[in-house]
Amino acid sequence: MDCIFCKIAHGEIPSATLYEDDAFRVILDVGPASRGHALILPKEHAKDLYSLSEETASKVLVLAKKMASKMSEALGCDGLNLVQNNGEIAGQTVFHFHMHLIPRYKGDDVKIGWRPGRLSEKDKNELLSLLR
Amino acid sequence: MDCIFCKIAHGEIPSATLYEDDAFRVILDVGPASRGHALILPKEHAKDLYSLSEETASKVLVLAKKMASKMSEALGCDGLNLVQNNGEIAGQTVFHFHMHLIPRYKGDDVKIGWRPGRLSEKDKNELLSLLR
Repeated sequence: MDCIFCKIAHGEIPSATLYEDDAFRVILDVGPASRGHALILPKEHAKDLYSLSEETASKVLVLAKKMASKMSEALGCDGLNLVQNNGEIAGQTVFHFHMHLIPRYKGDDVKIGWRPGRLSEKDKNELLSLLR
Repeated sequence: MDCIFCKIAHGEIPSATLYEDDAFRVILDVGPASRGHALILPKEHAKDLYSLSEETASKVLVLAKKMASKMSEALGCDGLNLVQNNGEIAGQTVFHFHMHLIPRYKGDDVKIGWRPGRLSEKDKNELLSLLR
């Protein structure tokens, strides 16, 4: 399979590795949004969250928490965004599950957010019947 | 403790609940970025990822995967963003850990992304020595 993140995760392509264990590699993003922007890459190939195994899924946020604490201590960041994109429409560009860890600093120019809409009664009831 | 997400998670304040178990409640966001925008709320009070227990952290993405699959089937969305903000600078407004599930649709006007920088050799080496 010709997946660049598989090759990076398994060490076949060199990367700026912050952490590695049996299931994951954490690397610095080469196109960082902010200082210390890192990616959690599972060694398991899964295109996205939908196809990620439950076993791997159960470990991602535990590792994110560990990395976030390290970033907080070592970089003195003031906050952190976790972002995980699924599908081209959602901004996914490499089709191997990955989670972005984006340290945030006072005065940075990163904008991760959205214009809030309003959940109408009609939408709410429709969504509840579809998703409950 | 006067935490609105504790009250919602424990059912003391009504919410548009999509899913509930012993550890979590999943609700529709009242200010949705897109149709079906939901929040995963742990019943455990933790301000953010840094203070979330490992036990709860290990369950969040397994639940996110389950909800994402349901959204995909029931809403016919074309993608999904997971976003989890820590700290005011990162856009966190309620200080009880929560993860956003934002279904994405072709032609929607949601923009979740950033302007990529460039990881210089100097930055890379400095960050590797700080974070490894």
